[in-house]
Amino acid sequence: MALRSLLAQECTLPDRVYFYDTTLRDGEQTPGVALLAEEKLEIARQLDALGVDSIEAGFPATSKGEQEAARLIAGAGLKAEVSALARSIQKDIDLALSCNVGCVHTFIATSDIHLKKKLGMSREEVVQRAVESVEYVKAHGLKCEFSAEDATRTDPDFLIDIYEAVVKAGADRIDIPDTVGVAVPRAFFHLVRNVTERIKVPVALHCHDDMGLAVANSLAGVEAGAQELHVTVNGIGERAGNASLEELALSLYALYGVRTGINLKEIYETSRLVSKLTGVVIAPNKSVVGDNAFAHESGIHTDGIISSPDTYEPLPPEIVGHERKLVAGKHAGKHGIDAMLKEMGLILTKSQLDEIVGRVKDLGDKGRAVTETDLFHIFEAVTKSTAPEKRRIELSDLVVVTGSKTTPTATLKLLIDGKEYKASEFGIGPIDAALKAIQNVVGDVTKFKLVDFKLEAITGGSDALANVTVKLMDNKRRTVSAKGVREDIVMAGVEAVINAANRLLLLNSLTERTSA
Amino acid sequence: MALRSLLAQECTLPDRVYFYDTTLRDGEQTPGVALLAEEKLEIARQLDALGVDSIEAGFPATSKGEQEAARLIAGAGLKAEVSALARSIQKDIDLALSCNVGCVHTFIATSDIHLKKKLGMSREEVVQRAVESVEYVKAHGLKCEFSAEDATRTDPDFLIDIYEAVVKAGADRIDIPDTVGVAVPRAFFHLVRNVTERIKVPVALHCHDDMGLAVANSLAGVEAGAQELHVTVNGIGERAGNASLEELALSLYALYGVRTGINLKEIYETSRLVSKLTGVVIAPNKSVVGDNAFAHESGIHTDGIISSPDTYEPLPPEIVGHERKLVAGKHAGKHGIDAMLKEMGLILTKSQLDEIVGRVKDLGDKGRAVTETDLFHIFEAVTKSTAPEKRRIELSDLVVVTGSKTTPTATLKLLIDGKEYKASEFGIGPIDAALKAIQNVVGDVTKFKLVDFKLEAITGGSDALANVTVKLMDNKRRTVSAKGVREDIVMAGVEAVINAANRLLLLNSLTERTSA
Repeated sequence: MALRSLLAQECTLPDRVYFYDTTLRDGEQTPGVALLAEEKLEIARQLDALGVDSIEAGFPATSKGEQEAARLIAGAGLKAEVSALARSIQKDIDLALSCNVGCVHTFIATSDIHLKKKLGMSREEVVQRAVESVEYVKAHGLKCEFSAEDATRTDPDFLIDIYEAVVKAGADRIDIPDTVGVAVPRAFFHLVRNVTERIKVPVALHCHDDMGLAVANSLAGVEAGAQELHVTVNGIGERAGNASLEELALSLYALYGVRTGINLKEIYETSRLVSKLTGVVIAPNKSVVGDNAFAHESGIHTDGIISSPDTYEPLPPEIVGHERKLVAGKHAGKHGIDAMLKEMGLILTKSQLDEIVGRVKDLGDKGRAVTETDLFHIFEAVTKSTAPEKRRIELSDLVVVTGSKTTPTATLKLLIDGKEYKASEFGIGPIDAALKAIQNVVGDVTKFKLVDFKLEAITGGSDALANVTVKLMDNKRRTVSAKGVREDIVMAGVEAVINAANRLLLLNSLTERTSA
Repeated sequence: MALRSLLAQECTLPDRVYFYDTTLRDGEQTPGVALLAEEKLEIARQLDALGVDSIEAGFPATSKGEQEAARLIAGAGLKAEVSALARSIQKDIDLALSCNVGCVHTFIATSDIHLKKKLGMSREEVVQRAVESVEYVKAHGLKCEFSAEDATRTDPDFLIDIYEAVVKAGADRIDIPDTVGVAVPRAFFHLVRNVTERIKVPVALHCHDDMGLAVANSLAGVEAGAQELHVTVNGIGERAGNASLEELALSLYALYGVRTGINLKEIYETSRLVSKLTGVVIAPNKSVVGDNAFAHESGIHTDGIISSPDTYEPLPPEIVGHERKLVAGKHAGKHGIDAMLKEMGLILTKSQLDEIVGRVKDLGDKGRAVTETDLFHIFEAVTKSTAPEKRRIELSDLVVVTGSKTTPTATLKLLIDGKEYKASEFGIGPIDAALKAIQNVVGDVTKFKLVDFKLEAITGGSDALANVTVKLMDNKRRTVSAKGVREDIVMAGVEAVINAANRLLLLNSLTERTSA
């Protein structure tokens, strides 16, 4: 491949790249995010299973809780090195030392902007403080990594001077942060190469994503001989965040063929855990871990995927523990929709298929995302003769009450195959109560449990549409999902569960018929 | 700057880069997205105001609605060129022509993988079809852009052959798509340079973001002389999406100093419109347009921002129509919290400030994101002598009823300054009804309107926490926001509005006192 020879010719690629994960430090600095010490520990254990080399557990000078979390992680017996951040100030370093970590990551700003406007210090003073700090850490027998904050806006000669000074003082590794995310790969490559040629300890990179270039800059730095990458899960962090662990791990593996300690299969799981605990949502189009990263709707793409996934996927989703998804919709072609129906166990004639594809496109033209449930109902309508004509479960009546002094309660009547069932349940909220009442009634006909409940974010007014997706699993471990879209959040949740329960029943009867 | 001389030395940068926006075609192919023709037109008008050079309005062969939308946009009198996609098939091109667009973008796959596994065609057949298609478009007097699908996995010599053939046939521009997102900037630069040196029409790039490198690859291609970039707003599109318009526009402006037609100030607005109409959420850490792209919480960063924003921001947020946000939280330092309180009109003594900072950090250590309302309450508690001691509005009782045959209704009792008020209202959902009832009662004391209601996505079970943020505006056009977090969605919404209303009242009385 062309890249291999280019890399050999133009680059000084290291044998192995080390991942220094700062999800718990720079990632937690994401505005609005705050993790409990136990949550930090849970993430740290997962990062250890993922195989990162170092875990930056926190910035102890921030707060007592931050110190407690760092101490907890340092004492958890992880394989990864546990590190803590400290300004080049003795008080900060003492707090880091008190957490019993294995490494102190100490930093001071080196750009003229920061020297003048933030620190009010001369270059000489900055070097002196950096050197004293490194010596202080090393005097305590710990590993020490030194960062020159805002390195990419620092005079390149001064940058080399301060790195040389701290290495002489005993720094084990030096780090080049692109603090405000203004580096460009082509220039960053030269900046990093200048450092790796002059500085004889491992060089780390810490890139921010303000222009969307954090991953590319990190890779350009690896091409220039950097051996360590500062990363965060899902690319969270200050402002637009840090370089994303998952994108770097995958591209080093798949494109560069460089060794890392990352167990790729744990990537998806790690991503979901961090999103859940930090509350930072993952956009569906997020590379590697987004919901759509391996999803296909358009006809040309699903056709390709069906004949051979490598036509439209750079790598199979299983590599990172994710999964492939074919989606019905206006862009879907005949082959894709046929494959989706077949996966549900439904066999069609050519004319039935044409009719279904036409109706799917009509729905899409009306601005509707076509769910699997829609596809099912269209199938039902088009193949009337062989499929049951109506939904077996219908909501006949529902009343939900909640309030400040009221236990949320739902009372409902359902018709199942025309026969009326009633139930009343309370819950911790109105939706929870309603779902319990439905489960109570429908449980007699088909056993299922709710495995996922997802309410999409609502922005705008209190009268915006609520969009609920639920996933149910029956006792044969088959899952179905369905959606409810209403202006009333409670009704949207109820609609989704009833739609899904109907689909489960339909799936049973239809697969029996078409396979007969 | 080092980059400038590098670019002059190593690159062949064009004078101006043209933006070919495919939000309405590749962007709409995002699985699960479907836009109405009128919505597409609304986005097209905004793209025109933003200053893109070409708008790919759709893929007419997909559906009738797709044709209608393309026709609508082509006839809207926009400044931008309007283009439509067509496979290298006469039927597709005829449908594109029927939409009265100014340009047809025709494509055929050229990689061996696609030839063997998808098309079942030889290279010769592919070239013939490509040439015939271009000739057919040109015979109708339209502009024609040709894409060699999966170019980055195509034999480089064959790639040049087919481009030479279509240019000879009259193609006005040729496009290099990285269809499955496997390019690396260093290699892509050479691939593109090889094409720009050999092909004498403008060269376009169409990059996908599977490894997070779409933007970097596009920039590397520009360094190699490409003049046109295929982009989408918010980087939506197939799988992990396309190169993001906003990241490319900003980096070309700020880092490369290359001219484009983009009116940067319209970026934020455009991004929100596309997110609203497509339903594809923007992660808070999305570069340039995410909620946090210009937000700061940590003490070191807010300190810097307060003394000079360029310490921790690559560019001021106003450039793209976004805004700066300082956030209270465990990482916040003294200066940041002082600045936030001052912005609310509150002046403190040093010891009061120390006490407040300590309490903010304690809340953060408990895993709590600290909202402005929290900050307010802490201020209240710490400065007891000068501030009112309690909230003026308290919820005394609330009952909400909804259901399948019930109009959602809320009845509530509020205590305002200890006096009881009652109201009952109906709405389109239970939250809407409750908010109307609150507005009804509180409107007597202070005039406000609800300007934003945001419910964060809930994933997990129906018993997950609901997190509602509301923004209210009073008649002096001051806005406050507040949060409600409850297991009961309805109660979370009510709590948020009451918190915000209290803040409005508090803001009035406190600013009067401290400025006195």
